[in-house]
Amino acid sequence: MINACVIGLGLRGISLLKHVLTRIDELKITCVCDRYEDRVDHGLKILEEAGQKAKGFTDWKEALEEDGINAVFIFSSWDAHATMAIYAMRKGIAVACEVGGEYSIENCFELVKTQEETGTPYMFMENCCWGKDELLATSMARKGVFGTIVHCSGSYSHDLRNEISYGHVTRHYRFDNYLNRCCDNYPTHDLGPIAKLLDINRGNRILTVSSFATKAAGLEEYIKSRTDATEEMKNARFKQGDIITTVLTCANGETILLRLDTTLPRSYSRDFTVRGTKGMYMQDTNTVFLDGDPEFFEPTEYYKQAFNNGVKYEAEYLPAFLKNMSSEDKASGHGGMDWLTYNAFVSALIDGSEMPIDIYDAATWQAVTVLSEMSIQQGGMPQEMPDFTGGKWAYRPRKDVCDLS
Amino acid sequence: MINACVIGLGLRGISLLKHVLTRIDELKITCVCDRYEDRVDHGLKILEEAGQKAKGFTDWKEALEEDGINAVFIFSSWDAHATMAIYAMRKGIAVACEVGGEYSIENCFELVKTQEETGTPYMFMENCCWGKDELLATSMARKGVFGTIVHCSGSYSHDLRNEISYGHVTRHYRFDNYLNRCCDNYPTHDLGPIAKLLDINRGNRILTVSSFATKAAGLEEYIKSRTDATEEMKNARFKQGDIITTVLTCANGETILLRLDTTLPRSYSRDFTVRGTKGMYMQDTNTVFLDGDPEFFEPTEYYKQAFNNGVKYEAEYLPAFLKNMSSEDKASGHGGMDWLTYNAFVSALIDGSEMPIDIYDAATWQAVTVLSEMSIQQGGMPQEMPDFTGGKWAYRPRKDVCDLS
Repeated sequence: MINACVIGLGLRGISLLKHVLTRIDELKITCVCDRYEDRVDHGLKILEEAGQKAKGFTDWKEALEEDGINAVFIFSSWDAHATMAIYAMRKGIAVACEVGGEYSIENCFELVKTQEETGTPYMFMENCCWGKDELLATSMARKGVFGTIVHCSGSYSHDLRNEISYGHVTRHYRFDNYLNRCCDNYPTHDLGPIAKLLDINRGNRILTVSSFATKAAGLEEYIKSRTDATEEMKNARFKQGDIITTVLTCANGETILLRLDTTLPRSYSRDFTVRGTKGMYMQDTNTVFLDGDPEFFEPTEYYKQAFNNGVKYEAEYLPAFLKNMSSEDKASGHGGMDWLTYNAFVSALIDGSEMPIDIYDAATWQAVTVLSEMSIQQGGMPQEMPDFTGGKWAYRPRKDVCDLS
Repeated sequence: MINACVIGLGLRGISLLKHVLTRIDELKITCVCDRYEDRVDHGLKILEEAGQKAKGFTDWKEALEEDGINAVFIFSSWDAHATMAIYAMRKGIAVACEVGGEYSIENCFELVKTQEETGTPYMFMENCCWGKDELLATSMARKGVFGTIVHCSGSYSHDLRNEISYGHVTRHYRFDNYLNRCCDNYPTHDLGPIAKLLDINRGNRILTVSSFATKAAGLEEYIKSRTDATEEMKNARFKQGDIITTVLTCANGETILLRLDTTLPRSYSRDFTVRGTKGMYMQDTNTVFLDGDPEFFEPTEYYKQAFNNGVKYEAEYLPAFLKNMSSEDKASGHGGMDWLTYNAFVSALIDGSEMPIDIYDAATWQAVTVLSEMSIQQGGMPQEMPDFTGGKWAYRPRKDVCDLS
């Protein structure tokens, strides 16, 4: 049994607590913490409803002093992640850290150094690594269906105009981030599955990060259209560009294209795309194109023919556990990805096995935010990605997030 | 009546001669030229079949000495375009130049200088500026449907592995280009319509060009799979990366994303995408998303709902002449784009009106090739785009390729 502390009870924390953590048998939530008391009460109420009893805290360091805590779930604001994770690892408390981007390269190095020195288990909870489409394509790639992979792209395309602009009301940290920074502040939903597929930090590594920002127009126009906008919203002049385009180059010759796209109207998409010498996968339309498939001069004609043809490959390539997920697990958050991600952490912790997404992944993926901010400030100058593995990337073996064989 | 010379009778030249030029009433082809005699004969035969009589040449300068030539169509290899265009402009012969990329910034400046000094009409024949999807979206953008435009992207995604690798047999210049260079060698099918939409050189301008190349794997793997490969093909080690990602930044705060994608298996696409504060257009699936349209967490569900919904906007926004095209015109090449492009040149020449795609467009768009080559050589360093208008971009009025009102 794992006794765990949960820090951060905003929208994400509450959702995970309610739909995922309270449903994992091997897990007992003994403490919950948030800087706001009403959120602590909310968390305790959810646990009560689930028949569990926990202590509430508004000071996270105090919470981590409680006896018998084996693990901490960090769901707090992006800027607190590293500090909390480092503190917990030093106390020997295993860390499951929600996603985000980092604010300094020093933080990334400190995360790595602390984990290496303490040996405390750490996992970066990038749920999109368990996305059905991402795993189908990765499984196909592993079996050579796409040939040599040369390029991958992805996106975090999610219209967050309401969440961001009302962030100062709802106490969401995105408001201040969008007000003051301009960068790919949330790169890991798209980068995570790509980095896994391309064996980043395991035989391959990211060499450079270049980022480019559009002007910031989406949020301010949105706020003008809202009759209930507060004065603080009306006066806000956001620095965050509407679309951030980031290109990464890799040691093995691949390129990765990322897009942050959160302040313009559109439907949700991660636009996960894999390009190889024998074929390609495109998530938006769940389309597989293999060498020799019929070509079309009219794109619409092609997409009509090939729309959702990825389902034809599921029988052979989709990992078995994804085929057999219960509807309750699927409903627990983001199509079941949350369920799989948090169970993977719990299983690895209990088994004492290697975490599927480790500290090097966390440092590298989150460093993209820092480097993209620097690159934009320097007009698109490529920034060198540090080697957080200290040379070990050259011989570390492949580690997929689950069995794809 | 325009008496014209045609230089370059490869695949593209022959196709345009046969399906477009011989069908334009105001045009008389009096000379045809190619360095290869068999191609000259082919051109003369096509003219004969169309009931026209012309002289054949293997020396293009000789061809341009013929009496009474008012215009030249340049369909030759990319590296000859500037030399021929400059020479013709100096002789007062109006130039219609097929698309490609340039090899030096000096050539781009020389094109501009020559046109400014001589006043000879020049048009860059970028047919995708007359693409139906591109014009529908541009027309919608002009009417404010997408709000403030902040980002556009496009692609030249065309599997040319057969054409390129057999280029030394078919005498196609792509073979040598792919063997020796690494750049976005063909940026204008995607950039052209975007540059028009964003008023580049007319109130806006491109500031920087950054490019990133994948490794080159597609062609060599393709050649290995061909049992009829020649020794020259088998020994070829191509420098051209399979996918070139290029990001342009603009004076008015927009970014443009381009992809050259010609040596991997896939269906054809230009992936023309427009992103604004009120909506977006995506060419691949002919999808319009407007602010307030229903969002979906599952991309496939969204694309299923919105697939080809662009047709709903045609009645209000598609330019009338596109609705009324004859099937013969449409069949004349690339869905009718060629017909519209070449007729636009002939009309402007006869009317003495401004060319819809002028020398500043030609210089800027083709300079992307040069700057992308430099950027890749420098690990993605942004390259400054020269101001070929000499400051005139700040006040030159908008010029669409056709009436979009």
